[in-house]
Amino acid sequence: MEHIKDGWFTESCALWPGQAMSLQVEEVLHQKKSEFQDIMVFKSKTYGNVLVLDGVIQCTERDEFAYQEMIANLPLCSHPCPKKVLIIGGGDGGVLREVVKSPLVESVVLCEIDEKFLPGMAKGFYSPKLILHIGDGFEFMKKNQDAFDIIITDSSDPVGECQWLHLELIKEMRTFCKTLFPVVDYAYSTIPTYPSGQIGFMLCSKNPETNFLDPMRALSKEEMECMNLKYYNPEIHKASFVLPEFAKKVLNEA
Amino acid sequence: MEHIKDGWFTESCALWPGQAMSLQVEEVLHQKKSEFQDIMVFKSKTYGNVLVLDGVIQCTERDEFAYQEMIANLPLCSHPCPKKVLIIGGGDGGVLREVVKSPLVESVVLCEIDEKFLPGMAKGFYSPKLILHIGDGFEFMKKNQDAFDIIITDSSDPVGECQWLHLELIKEMRTFCKTLFPVVDYAYSTIPTYPSGQIGFMLCSKNPETNFLDPMRALSKEEMECMNLKYYNPEIHKASFVLPEFAKKVLNEA
Repeated sequence: MEHIKDGWFTESCALWPGQAMSLQVEEVLHQKKSEFQDIMVFKSKTYGNVLVLDGVIQCTERDEFAYQEMIANLPLCSHPCPKKVLIIGGGDGGVLREVVKSPLVESVVLCEIDEKFLPGMAKGFYSPKLILHIGDGFEFMKKNQDAFDIIITDSSDPVGECQWLHLELIKEMRTFCKTLFPVVDYAYSTIPTYPSGQIGFMLCSKNPETNFLDPMRALSKEEMECMNLKYYNPEIHKASFVLPEFAKKVLNEA
Repeated sequence: MEHIKDGWFTESCALWPGQAMSLQVEEVLHQKKSEFQDIMVFKSKTYGNVLVLDGVIQCTERDEFAYQEMIANLPLCSHPCPKKVLIIGGGDGGVLREVVKSPLVESVVLCEIDEKFLPGMAKGFYSPKLILHIGDGFEFMKKNQDAFDIIITDSSDPVGECQWLHLELIKEMRTFCKTLFPVVDYAYSTIPTYPSGQIGFMLCSKNPETNFLDPMRALSKEEMECMNLKYYNPEIHKASFVLPEFAKKVLNEA
């Protein structure tokens, strides 16, 4: 419990030097050192249960929907026919929960190397659409990438995706993705418990006609209610690609 | 220096319970207890100099532009003829610096009760457009409100303006503002050192024709460069009013 002191969990990391986020802890619920990572779940005072991997907050019950809904629906609503989805990582079940909500999705392969969980996020594991694959996601993807309409990489690495903190890294990632895909765009979601309060997504398409910036299917009010969406809506889809001037300048060069 | 421990400044507040933001401190530059508040300026490791009032971060050199540019330009670019501007509070000079950049603005009255400053933000104090008034801003506003095209309230109180933390408070504020103004809209800016990484603005207009959501004057690329804008641009102006579904639902009722 090295990260917990005086009843507070503090997350600091070399990737965001000089700043740290703390959450007040009520009770540590689970702690385990697996072959691949340190897993901890604690009950926080005001953010519900919190999943921590290797000292880095992965999700909290209070705000996880902002990340899960955006990483799922930005690609789902940009694809003409998203029947088969692959999720690499995402073993906490949050992305899966959002993906199976889409009536267009017929099957989801979730490829995860390790166990990790948060009560309440694992609903999707009961979906008949799910095919679970335990193993290295990137190995699996290499062999099977053409079998899917959408591939979502929900990596647990603390790689920088916040425009306030990691703009050069995002630029490099965008430049690299552009060597592989004709369409590459960066979007972001606000989320209090990720460093500096936001997290970004790199959206890539093999189809040069794809326009991520304007959803191909704008979900109706009824669809959003049926899917119980709390963050994503068609307007925030568009707005999530709009960058402040300093980030726009750097990423437009990429 | 009660808020500094082991070389880190930690901001916690009853308004955002169970969470805290910390910044690594290199040196405390200024500390003073004035008649109205505790003022501290410290040099941080990665956010430049930081101004703290009564234990709450007011601004850091690294990200203050996100707040100052938005609080200045959202109203400036929504007004047909913003010649005379009143700033209540804002004694750090950041909002003033942004307001005087506008070639349309002819005079700015800054009404501040107390001294507080950050090196590098005070440029606007040298502007010939400035009329400085030391005294109670709300008293001044009551007597002079019709003399201004735009009134910007840049209060130092830690009142909640983040949709993730203070949605009910924002709703109440919006409902109250609607009893006074025909047009009331809520916008937000991302900013790492404000609680949960963002801060909001309530925009109110006496003119029922005002449409804050779409800037009346879209600044050109040249104008933005001339004004050295790092956050604000016409696209982010529009996007800043787009809310995630949970916030939209609550604020639309207000």
